[in-house]
Amino acid sequence: MSGAILTIDELTGLVEEIMLKGGLSPLHAAALTRVIVAGERDACKSHGVYRVEGCLRTIKAGKVVPDAVPELSSDDSAIVRVAAGGGFSNAAFEAGAPVLAEKARKFGLAALVINDCTHFAALWPEIELLTEHGLAAMAMCPSYASVAPSGGSAALLGTNPFAFGWPRRDKNPYVFDFATSVAARGEIELYRRAGKQLPDGWAIDRDGHPTTDPEAALDGAMLPFGAHKGSAISTMIELLAAVMIGDLTSPEALEALGTTALAPAHGELILAFDPTRFSQGRAGDPLARAEMLFEAMTGQGARLPSQRRFAARQKALAEGIRLTSEEMALLERLRGKGLDAV
Amino acid sequence: MSGAILTIDELTGLVEEIMLKGGLSPLHAAALTRVIVAGERDACKSHGVYRVEGCLRTIKAGKVVPDAVPELSSDDSAIVRVAAGGGFSNAAFEAGAPVLAEKARKFGLAALVINDCTHFAALWPEIELLTEHGLAAMAMCPSYASVAPSGGSAALLGTNPFAFGWPRRDKNPYVFDFATSVAARGEIELYRRAGKQLPDGWAIDRDGHPTTDPEAALDGAMLPFGAHKGSAISTMIELLAAVMIGDLTSPEALEALGTTALAPAHGELILAFDPTRFSQGRAGDPLARAEMLFEAMTGQGARLPSQRRFAARQKALAEGIRLTSEEMALLERLRGKGLDAV
Repeated sequence: MSGAILTIDELTGLVEEIMLKGGLSPLHAAALTRVIVAGERDACKSHGVYRVEGCLRTIKAGKVVPDAVPELSSDDSAIVRVAAGGGFSNAAFEAGAPVLAEKARKFGLAALVINDCTHFAALWPEIELLTEHGLAAMAMCPSYASVAPSGGSAALLGTNPFAFGWPRRDKNPYVFDFATSVAARGEIELYRRAGKQLPDGWAIDRDGHPTTDPEAALDGAMLPFGAHKGSAISTMIELLAAVMIGDLTSPEALEALGTTALAPAHGELILAFDPTRFSQGRAGDPLARAEMLFEAMTGQGARLPSQRRFAARQKALAEGIRLTSEEMALLERLRGKGLDAV
Repeated sequence: MSGAILTIDELTGLVEEIMLKGGLSPLHAAALTRVIVAGERDACKSHGVYRVEGCLRTIKAGKVVPDAVPELSSDDSAIVRVAAGGGFSNAAFEAGAPVLAEKARKFGLAALVINDCTHFAALWPEIELLTEHGLAAMAMCPSYASVAPSGGSAALLGTNPFAFGWPRRDKNPYVFDFATSVAARGEIELYRRAGKQLPDGWAIDRDGHPTTDPEAALDGAMLPFGAHKGSAISTMIELLAAVMIGDLTSPEALEALGTTALAPAHGELILAFDPTRFSQGRAGDPLARAEMLFEAMTGQGARLPSQRRFAARQKALAEGIRLTSEEMALLERLRGKGLDAV
């Protein structure tokens, strides 16, 4: 197998250099690099270096403010807001997270609202940052219209990721992060690039008929997971993390952007819960009790979510990250030519 | 078709009389009657009069405190707590809901924790009560171990209902309320009573093998909806609405009760969000913007959740509620003999 093995620091340096060359301010370059490297480190390829090019395309198209300064505002409520000012979401999240954690400890639960951001990458890095504070957390956001509601015939909902985390002492947290479509758009894109057919039940074509062709799926609509139940959860995400926070829904985000090839612009909602505060006055330590539940699950052969990611992380930390020669060539080209390469 | 047609008031009077005869205090008799009549009114049979008998069985078994007085406690956090004192959950919810609504308006979001309750009936009546306050709401609770986690082989998780609501002006709210198992336990019970086989994919038997036999399913384990995604959401519910609030998880609830034939004892978590507060300073009225989303959904043939319930409700309000002769005979027997009939 050709390609290269990079340490996490080396990959970080390379991606950050590309981001800076692409015109991002150091704040955004560092924040985006962190999540892209985390994706690659965790073998979460659909959120890894393959996203670098899309990021640069979004900058080149003028659809993101590359040097936006996230503006935090807070009042006496349990809500903290960050106006991303058209910049990427990641730095906005990092600006708001400490205040979210503080408010969650003060009020028991709190919400972080991110507005006017270009959303980028997975939610689990954000969830993990909050579980490191000893908090449980839930995150959700729309994307752009690409999923048909249950019983419908055309793209309306986004792939609307839903993520949750629970802190564990001296262990990787319990974390899940999934698209409310059967598959993530990035997965379909990977099928397309690999020239492979999709599994049944993932998508409909533009006429509303079932399809296994990735191109037809990207041109038509994906389907929600779990039929009407997943569709309902996806709709809840449009309502809470778009309508309620005064930001774009998935159909509005698509209309504003005019394409699904660039990172979408909208908002995000993150909730944090303090288990210490919630369990106050009750018997038992919540973190210890959660371990009993996890042990009962793994004891009967069920796997906790994210274990594949955590195993890949451990391996990457020990052995470095292996990139294919195509991936290395792409990154070198982007490093050399910047926005001219996309 | 034999049987009887009762007005809502007549059915309310009949059920309440049975509940009082069963030993419930007037507070609990009224609260339980409200949700049972609401279930029957909305043609939600698995939460209708068929539940009356189970309620009396739970009282007779001494597994609920029939005259418990819900105790509300509140501090300067965004959490309001109701200690149900071993009583049914419904009166506890009704005691806490006004304070939850008040806190949600004050803090933007708030949580109602119900502890030590015997949980009874669906979550949508609670969600609807909060949407009537102009709030969005989310509710969840464990039940008793009856669902195998994804990849597992035995019952561990509960059917763990997840419900959400969004207020609509001059319209029935957007509401969903579903079990995180493929089917609700009540549905499997109805299959058993009807002597019908279950659809594929609903359950495994006690050896961990797929089954379509309702008896074997009730003796084995149900499966989560949406494979690993539904399983993850169900686990989240165990963590937030059991472990975090210092109350029993589904396996603990089953262990405490020793049977799945009685209403389970545990806690419940309800979150409320004030859209006015969340959308503050942003363009657009969230309730009006939500209507655009709903119109886009129905305009392409997708159905909003709960529409069948709302249609049944309208019919019941106009024409009364039809009960079968078997149902009437059961209710009359319960009215006559009380706990001696179960």
